[in-house]
Amino acid sequence: MTAHTHQTAPTQFVEASGIRFAYRRFGKAGGVPLVFNQHFTGTMEHWDPAVTDGFAKDREVILFNNAGVSSSSGEVPTSIEEMAQHAVAFTDALGIKKRDALGFSMGGFVAQQFTIDRPDLVRKLILVGTGPRSGEGMASLTPEAHEIFGAKYEPADELWLRVFFTPSKQSQAAGRKYLERQRARKENRDPVANDKVAPAQISALQQVAALQKWGAPAKDPYAYLKKITQPTLVVNGSNDVIVYTVNSFILQQNLPNAQLILYPDGNHGAQYQYPELFVEHVTQFLKG
Amino acid sequence: MTAHTHQTAPTQFVEASGIRFAYRRFGKAGGVPLVFNQHFTGTMEHWDPAVTDGFAKDREVILFNNAGVSSSSGEVPTSIEEMAQHAVAFTDALGIKKRDALGFSMGGFVAQQFTIDRPDLVRKLILVGTGPRSGEGMASLTPEAHEIFGAKYEPADELWLRVFFTPSKQSQAAGRKYLERQRARKENRDPVANDKVAPAQISALQQVAALQKWGAPAKDPYAYLKKITQPTLVVNGSNDVIVYTVNSFILQQNLPNAQLILYPDGNHGAQYQYPELFVEHVTQFLKG
Repeated sequence: MTAHTHQTAPTQFVEASGIRFAYRRFGKAGGVPLVFNQHFTGTMEHWDPAVTDGFAKDREVILFNNAGVSSSSGEVPTSIEEMAQHAVAFTDALGIKKRDALGFSMGGFVAQQFTIDRPDLVRKLILVGTGPRSGEGMASLTPEAHEIFGAKYEPADELWLRVFFTPSKQSQAAGRKYLERQRARKENRDPVANDKVAPAQISALQQVAALQKWGAPAKDPYAYLKKITQPTLVVNGSNDVIVYTVNSFILQQNLPNAQLILYPDGNHGAQYQYPELFVEHVTQFLKG
Repeated sequence: MTAHTHQTAPTQFVEASGIRFAYRRFGKAGGVPLVFNQHFTGTMEHWDPAVTDGFAKDREVILFNNAGVSSSSGEVPTSIEEMAQHAVAFTDALGIKKRDALGFSMGGFVAQQFTIDRPDLVRKLILVGTGPRSGEGMASLTPEAHEIFGAKYEPADELWLRVFFTPSKQSQAAGRKYLERQRARKENRDPVANDKVAPAQISALQQVAALQKWGAPAKDPYAYLKKITQPTLVVNGSNDVIVYTVNSFILQQNLPNAQLILYPDGNHGAQYQYPELFVEHVTQFLKG
């Protein structure tokens, strides 16, 4: 057990494939670590300490920025396949042979991809607020995502109140608590988008290109999911407007060994609306 | 706390609306009881002791046969609405003001109906292997249900291996364990179908009539679900061939406050395939 938490874990760096990856690791070491794969435009700072520290009681948690994101060097690639290769290069550099992988949204696409490419590396898979290749409404950003990501927020991080939470009073209140938790780390925060506006915009455009290739229509698009034989937990909110909730159902129906949990009155970040329940559900799943 | 369990709880009787209802109650008394509403052709004997005794550690469990079923007198009505009225008459007769209601399959239709008719009586709702009015494939028995219920089994209760479990080796093995648990009560078992063949067949036909009215196509069929404001947990297997799994997703998407859990490699009785996990999930939901 390290003394570190989400708030205090230092940002470390490791080199692989010519990229200097920024990462943090904390929690109870010695078992299979839980590696987090982040969403579109997110950095290590966007994980919820209530979730990461919740898991860190029982297991080691590893956060990182993939290539070209925030404090990691390199360029954001324009395909999920390349992002998955980078994610594997990063954990290979740390010497991690086996992990439980949690992928949120775009991070869920990346986690699906590296599970297919390198099944030996993954014990169990947790797919949150995500969807399959060619899922419903996934050929481009949804109209709701266009509107939400296109609007201005003051302060800027209130964007996440709309991306992750529903308009309901309860959900918005939960969202404000999430923002407080997420802002609580004061030292050595990851650079936020506004610190270097142009590169962040380019990074976002590259990521959108990757998302659109993943979501593009294809023949028999869900067949690839049969290759993911790891026990998988699929989690989402009831009303995800960024990656429509039906995609979680599609994942569950097409994966050979998947459990699905949908939370009520929830949008894309329902796991931050019900962090204790989410940690309980995932912990049950990981121990099972 | 009574000393009784699923196996030892005596069958008791209470009169209401001219019906003599058979019931059993056991577990930790004093709080909100959990009342179980049974599926098509099921009696109190078809509940899984691993589930009922699992709940009985923390709360009082009440099982009963609705009108015309097995050890209860009266006639099986040909509508879910009348079954719901009977279910309410039964708990009124026991003086129960508030309950958590678990409805499995047809019992889930009944539980939806009495929650709408008498919302004051229900604190939380658990809907297992069930669906909404006019759900997908619900206008009649599914082709799979026709085939499965129409076949012969020796011993007869092996029917449930096909109704509740998938063809996979793991699921069938879990099914055989369920059958062992379900057969374990030796004293004062409910009369099984074979004891009085004609009435059981008539009872089944009446129940089918009720199911078909519930499932018949209708305009804007899911609007009624907005009236169920109680916290609801919807649970099913990934591959329910009796009430198709998509109906659980439809319930969750249309109920104002519902969580959904789908279990992998599961058919209509997935809660008996994963009884410990199911009890944990429901217990979390009831305490929340």
